[in-house]
Amino acid sequence: MKVAQATDAAMPDMGLPPRARIGERWDQVDTPSLMLDLDAFEDNLRTMQALAERHGVALRPHAKAHRCPEVSLRQVALGAQGICCQKVSEAFPFLQAGLRDIHISNEVIGEDKLALLATLARSAQVSVCVDHPEAARALSAALQRHNASLRVLVEIDVGQKRCGVTTPQAAVGLASLVQSLPGLTFAGLQAYHGGAQHKRGMAQRRGACEKAWKLTRQYIDALAAAGISCPVVSGGGTGSAAFDIASGVFTEVQAGSYAFMDADYGSLDWGDDLAFRHSLFMLATVMSRAVPERAILDMGLKSTTAESGMPIPHGIEGVHCVAVNDEHSILAVEPGARIELGDKLRLVPGHCDPTFNLHDELVVVQAGRVHAIWPISARGLSR
Amino acid sequence: MKVAQATDAAMPDMGLPPRARIGERWDQVDTPSLMLDLDAFEDNLRTMQALAERHGVALRPHAKAHRCPEVSLRQVALGAQGICCQKVSEAFPFLQAGLRDIHISNEVIGEDKLALLATLARSAQVSVCVDHPEAARALSAALQRHNASLRVLVEIDVGQKRCGVTTPQAAVGLASLVQSLPGLTFAGLQAYHGGAQHKRGMAQRRGACEKAWKLTRQYIDALAAAGISCPVVSGGGTGSAAFDIASGVFTEVQAGSYAFMDADYGSLDWGDDLAFRHSLFMLATVMSRAVPERAILDMGLKSTTAESGMPIPHGIEGVHCVAVNDEHSILAVEPGARIELGDKLRLVPGHCDPTFNLHDELVVVQAGRVHAIWPISARGLSR
Repeated sequence: MKVAQATDAAMPDMGLPPRARIGERWDQVDTPSLMLDLDAFEDNLRTMQALAERHGVALRPHAKAHRCPEVSLRQVALGAQGICCQKVSEAFPFLQAGLRDIHISNEVIGEDKLALLATLARSAQVSVCVDHPEAARALSAALQRHNASLRVLVEIDVGQKRCGVTTPQAAVGLASLVQSLPGLTFAGLQAYHGGAQHKRGMAQRRGACEKAWKLTRQYIDALAAAGISCPVVSGGGTGSAAFDIASGVFTEVQAGSYAFMDADYGSLDWGDDLAFRHSLFMLATVMSRAVPERAILDMGLKSTTAESGMPIPHGIEGVHCVAVNDEHSILAVEPGARIELGDKLRLVPGHCDPTFNLHDELVVVQAGRVHAIWPISARGLSR
Repeated sequence: MKVAQATDAAMPDMGLPPRARIGERWDQVDTPSLMLDLDAFEDNLRTMQALAERHGVALRPHAKAHRCPEVSLRQVALGAQGICCQKVSEAFPFLQAGLRDIHISNEVIGEDKLALLATLARSAQVSVCVDHPEAARALSAALQRHNASLRVLVEIDVGQKRCGVTTPQAAVGLASLVQSLPGLTFAGLQAYHGGAQHKRGMAQRRGACEKAWKLTRQYIDALAAAGISCPVVSGGGTGSAAFDIASGVFTEVQAGSYAFMDADYGSLDWGDDLAFRHSLFMLATVMSRAVPERAILDMGLKSTTAESGMPIPHGIEGVHCVAVNDEHSILAVEPGARIELGDKLRLVPGHCDPTFNLHDELVVVQAGRVHAIWPISARGLSR
C-alpha cells in the first residue's frame, strides 16, 4: 500500500458546481450536458395532442423516452390521458410527481417486481401487459397477497417479434384466464410494432402499419366472437402515430419520442403532414484540435449513444461526427469549416431514450438562456 | 388537465426495495443488476500486478472502466501506483475515497473544468494531458488563479487518430512551453493507442504496439536531444498490457478492463500468457417466452451496451443474444435448450466501461452469495 493513498486524509469539499445556472446563456453551460429547447418541445406536444384530439384517440405518451416527470406533467396538462412506463421502478418518480394513470407497457415477471407493481397499483390507476398464462396467474397471486388490483392488456405480436402472443386463439384464451383471476380486469390489447416506427419512407412505414392493423383487427374480432369486450387497444409510436391515430384501430397511442425528435426519427420521411422539431440537444466542448481535419468533443458513450446513428452537429456547416468513443466524439472537419478549441457545439442525439438515461438533469433553454433544470428522476430505474 | 392526475394527492412511500441483500443467493438478486464475481476479480488484479512488478513497470489502472472507488482501493492495496481518470468530475469520488495519486488521462478545456481541476490538484498529486499550446496557457492561468500546481504529460498520437500532437517537433515545443509556465511541471508523455487494444490476433495486436513504441521512442529521443527530461511515459491498455509492460518504453501502464474482462476483450486471442477471467456479469430475468425459438430478457440498452458486441449468456447452452433494445434483449433459443419464463441468467457484457456507467451499484458475489454492494459513485460524472 502506497503512503500517498490514505483514507483518513482530510476530505476536500465534494460538492461539484452546478452544470448550469438559471438565466445564463446556453453556451455558458458546462459540458457534456443534455439540453431541451422549450419552445420546440412545447410545439411538439401541442402538435401531437391536436392530432390525437382531431381523431378522438387518447394520447398516452411514453415516459421511457425521457424518464423526466416534468415532461409528463406538461403532456397531461395539455390533455394526455396518462402515461406509459416500460418498467415498474421507473413509474415511481412519476407517481411521486402526481401522475395517477400509468400503463406499464411491458410484461412483469418475478416476485420482487410483482410486489412493487402491487404497491404502485394501490396508489394509481395502473394497467400492465401479459403474454403468458403462467405470468397472469403469478400476477393475480401477487396482487391478492398485497390486496391490490389492476387492469390487464394482453400483448399481441403484430410484427415486432419480441413479446406478445402470436395467435388470436392464444389471446382469447389468455383474456378468458385474466377475466377469471382475482385482482385482474381484462381491459384490452397492446399492439406495438417497434420495427415499423423506424422505416425511412412514408409508404414503407404505412405498409408495415397496415399489416399490423389487419392483424390487430383479427384479434379484436376473435375476442368479440368469444363474447369478450375489448375497450382498449393501445399501441403506436412516433414513427407511425399519424397513421395509427387515423386508423380506427387504436383507442390510445403511446408515442414518446415526438416531443424531442432525435436524429434517427429526424431522418425519416415525414411528408408534409406532421412537422416535429428537434428540441433535444447534447452540448459538448471542442477539447482537442491537434490537426486541421479533426476536432474532438468531450462527449462520448457515457453521455449519448450511437446505436441508432451518430449525433448530428446543429447550426454549424462542414463538420460531422464519425465516431463516438467512451468519453470522446470524433468530428471530421471540412476545409474552411469554423470550429476552434473550446467552442461549444449543440448536437442532435442519435436516439433519445438511452441518451436521457445517461443524464440526471435536463437543462431547459428558452430564448437562448437557461430557463430551468429538470431532474431526470427515473434515470437508472430499470427494475 | 385530467382530474385523475393531481400533484397534491397523498404521496406513496417512494423508497424502492434494495436490489440485493447480503447473504442471499446470486439468483435471488433483482434484475437487471450488474454483478461482480469477487474471486475472479481479485485473481485478475493479482495477475496484472504481478506482471507489472516482474518488469518494474508501475501499474496505474484506469478508473474510467468502472467508476467504482472500491475497485481502485483494492488495486492500490495490491501495489498499484495510483489511478487514471478520464474526466475531472469523475475523479472526485475517488479522491473522497482516499485515492491521492490521480492522472487525468485526457485534455481539460474550459474555465469550469479548469477550476475543478485546480480544486482537485490542491488535494491530491494530480497530472493531466495537454496537446495544444493554447490549452497549456489556459491551464497555467487557471492554476495560478486557484493557487494550485500539477504535473503535465504531453499527449502524443501514436495511431489512435484522436487527441495528441502528431510530430516530435510539436511535442518538444509544447514540453518547453509547459516548462516555462507557472503552476505546471512537465512530467513526460502519454502514448495511448486505443485501436491497438482490440485487434483480435496476438500478432496483429503486437504489430500495432510495435509501431506505437517506435513512434514513442522518436518522441523520447527528440525530447532528450532538446535537453528535456521525460521521467514518465504512460499508456497501454488491457489488450496490449503484456506487450507494453515488457516493451521497455513505458514507465507506467493504464489498463483498466483487465479486472473485469468484457465480451469484447474476452474474444481476443490471448495465447497462453495472461489468463484473465470474466468477473463481470449482467443478471437478467427471462420475461417473455411467447414462442419456443425466442426468449426475452428484462435487460436492454439502459442496463448494458452493445456497440462492442452482444452480451454473451454464461453457464447455459444453446442460447445466444441477437439484439439489445432499449429495455429488452432478444435471445435466440436452439431446440432442446433449457430456458424458462422467470429464469435468471448471467451474461458477460459486451463492453464494461459504458455498462458500469449505467448502474449505481455493483452487486459483489462470492461463493454464490451476495458478499457486498459497492456504490459506483462516479456513475454519470462526465464533466
